[in-house]
Amino acid sequence: MDVEVFVADKDADKAKETARKIGKSNVKWFQLDASNRSELINVLKDFDVVLGFLPPKFGFSLMEACIKAGKNFVDVSYMPENPLVLHDKAVKADVTIVPSCGLAPGISNILVGHAFAELDKTSKVHIMVGGLPETPIPPLGYVITWSPESLIDEYTCKARIIKGGKIAEVEALEGLEEVEFPEIGKLEAFYTDGLRTLLYTVKGVEEMWEKTLRYPGHAEKVGLLRDLGFFSDEEVSVEGHRIQPRKLTAKLFEKTLVKPNVRDIVVLKVDVFGLKGGKEMRYTYKLVDFYDEKNGVTAMARTTAYTASIVAALILKGEVHLKGVAPPERLGMEDRIYKRIMAELNSRGVKIAEEICSE
Amino acid sequence: MDVEVFVADKDADKAKETARKIGKSNVKWFQLDASNRSELINVLKDFDVVLGFLPPKFGFSLMEACIKAGKNFVDVSYMPENPLVLHDKAVKADVTIVPSCGLAPGISNILVGHAFAELDKTSKVHIMVGGLPETPIPPLGYVITWSPESLIDEYTCKARIIKGGKIAEVEALEGLEEVEFPEIGKLEAFYTDGLRTLLYTVKGVEEMWEKTLRYPGHAEKVGLLRDLGFFSDEEVSVEGHRIQPRKLTAKLFEKTLVKPNVRDIVVLKVDVFGLKGGKEMRYTYKLVDFYDEKNGVTAMARTTAYTASIVAALILKGEVHLKGVAPPERLGMEDRIYKRIMAELNSRGVKIAEEICSE
Repeated sequence: MDVEVFVADKDADKAKETARKIGKSNVKWFQLDASNRSELINVLKDFDVVLGFLPPKFGFSLMEACIKAGKNFVDVSYMPENPLVLHDKAVKADVTIVPSCGLAPGISNILVGHAFAELDKTSKVHIMVGGLPETPIPPLGYVITWSPESLIDEYTCKARIIKGGKIAEVEALEGLEEVEFPEIGKLEAFYTDGLRTLLYTVKGVEEMWEKTLRYPGHAEKVGLLRDLGFFSDEEVSVEGHRIQPRKLTAKLFEKTLVKPNVRDIVVLKVDVFGLKGGKEMRYTYKLVDFYDEKNGVTAMARTTAYTASIVAALILKGEVHLKGVAPPERLGMEDRIYKRIMAELNSRGVKIAEEICSE
Repeated sequence: MDVEVFVADKDADKAKETARKIGKSNVKWFQLDASNRSELINVLKDFDVVLGFLPPKFGFSLMEACIKAGKNFVDVSYMPENPLVLHDKAVKADVTIVPSCGLAPGISNILVGHAFAELDKTSKVHIMVGGLPETPIPPLGYVITWSPESLIDEYTCKARIIKGGKIAEVEALEGLEEVEFPEIGKLEAFYTDGLRTLLYTVKGVEEMWEKTLRYPGHAEKVGLLRDLGFFSDEEVSVEGHRIQPRKLTAKLFEKTLVKPNVRDIVVLKVDVFGLKGGKEMRYTYKLVDFYDEKNGVTAMARTTAYTASIVAALILKGEVHLKGVAPPERLGMEDRIYKRIMAELNSRGVKIAEEICSE
C-alpha cells in the first residue's frame, strides 16, 4: 500500500527526530500543538486516518477533534474518560474510532473479543500483562520507559474489576499472586485498572480482571512508598512551599528509574473461560516479546505501536467496516479482522500462542 | 538531696508543661532562647549544673556557653561536633562537662569504659542498641519518638568504626546481621555512627563498632528509600520550587511514623573482648527496658534522661572529681563512679545484666 506518513509534535525537533527514526524514506513532519483545538481540527482535514500517541490528558479531546474533522482515529492514549460516550457522534460522522489500541489495553482486548465470540457463553476473563527490563534492575526491579506520573497512577488508582457479575472496585496492588513463566521465571501479579472498555463491551461474565506483572518483591516496595505517603496528592508544607508528595516522587523516579534504552521484555497472558457446545472451555493466549536489537525498538514499542499501525492500515484498506467507537475487542469479535491482525503481528515477529482446552 | 529544678524552653508553654509533668511539687520553669548566646550565658550563672536536651545543632554552643559561664554540664544532644576539643577550656574553667550522656552514646560508653578499665588489654568492642515499638508497627516496623531529620541522618551519614586498629568509614545500613534476643525475638543490626568520643578515648583496640537494632526487614526498606533518592539533600525542582527530597521525607515521616505515645522497648548489648591476667575474656552487658505504664514514661526517656540526671546529681554531690570534658566512658573507668551510676539506674528499674566469661 502506498501511504504518506506525517509525524506531528508540539516540539518541532522531536517531530523531526521521530520522523527520521521511523522513516525509511518519505516520512514527513510538522509542528502541531494538540491543545489548540481549532488549529488541530483544521490540520486533521488533510489526512485519512489519525494515530494518537499523546499523554492521557489529551486523548479524549484529540478523539473529539477527529470526529469533528470526520477522520478515522486509532489511539493508544490511556485517557481517563470513557471513549464509548462518543460512539453516537462517531457513527453520525461516519468514522471508525479505535481507542486503547496498544498492548493492554489493545492486543489483550482483541484476544478477549475473539474468545468471547468463539464461546457460547463467557464466564471468566483473566488478563496478566507487564513490560519489564530483561533482568530485574535495582532498586524496584523495574525501569520506566514512559511517564513516572502514569506509573504512580497505576499504584494508586482503584482498579475496576468484574466480580459476581458486577463492576467492583479494588485497591491497586491488591490480589497479589505469584505466576511462573517458563521463558522468564517467577513473576508477581496484582490488580491494576486496565479493563476499561471491556467492562462495558464483554457482557454477561461472572469474573473479569487485569493484573500487572512485575518481578517478585515489587508490589511490597511500591506499597511501602504508598503507605509512607510518597504517592499522595495531599499537599505538604516544605520550607514554606506547598508540595504534592507525588510530584516530588515523580521527579525522583525520573532520575532513578527512567532508562529509555534498557533492553525490555513484554509478557501477556489472557485466559478466557466459558461454555461451547455444552463443554467447559479455556482459551489461553501467551505473548512474550523481546527487544529488537537490530532496529533498536523496545518490546513495549513493538507491541504497542505495531498494533495501532496495523489497525490503522486495515482501516485505510477498507477492511474495517465497523463505524463509531469500536474498541479492539469489537475488532477481535470479527473473525476476519482478528485473523488479519494476528497475521500482521506475526509477520512483525510478535508471536501469540493460542491454547484451547476443554476442562 | 535538696535541689531546685528549673525547666527552660524557647516555647514558654512547653517549658511550663514539662515542668508540670516531671515536677512532683517544686519544678519551676522559664522561657529561654538558647540561640541568644549572651542572654544564655547570663542566665546560666544562677545554676550549679546544667542538663542539655537540645537538638544537635545547639549542643556544641550550649556546651561552650556553660564553660564560659563556669558551670558543670551534662548533655544528651547528638551534636555533630567533637566535644573533646573543648577539654582544655573546660579544665581552665574548672568545670565538669559530660557529653553524650544518654542511652547510646551514654550507658553504652559507661559499660565500655568499665570493661576497658577491668581488662589489661582491650581488643574488640561491639555495641548494639535500639529503641523500638513493643511490636513491629507497619510500614517500617518502627515509630519515631524524636526528630525525623535525625533518623534520616542515621540512614545516610557514614558510620565511623575502628577496623584493624584504625578509624574507618562504612556506609550506613551496611554490616547487616540478624541477632536473637530471648525477650524479644529476632532483630537485625546494621552500622550507625554512634561511637563518637569512644573513637578517641578507648585506645589500642583492633575493632570497634556500633550497630543499630531494628525489627527484621527495616534496613531493606529504608535502603530502598535511600536508593530512590528520598533521603538526598540535592535539590529537585518541583513545580517551580527547589526542594530537598529529605525535607519532604522528614515531613512524611512526621505524619506517618511519629507516634510519641506508643509503648516502646529499649535494647542494648555491649560486648568487650580482651586479655586479663593472660586470659582471653569477654565482658557482655545486656539491658532490655520497657515502657513505664504507671508514670507514662517511655523506655527511651527512662534510659536517656535517668542517666543524665543521675550523673548531674553525682556532680552536684561532689562525687565526680574529673574536670574538663569527661565523656561517659571516662566515668565508667572509675570503679567508684561506675558502681554509683549502676546502683542508681538499678533503683529506677533500669537493670543491666553483666556476664564475664573467659573464652
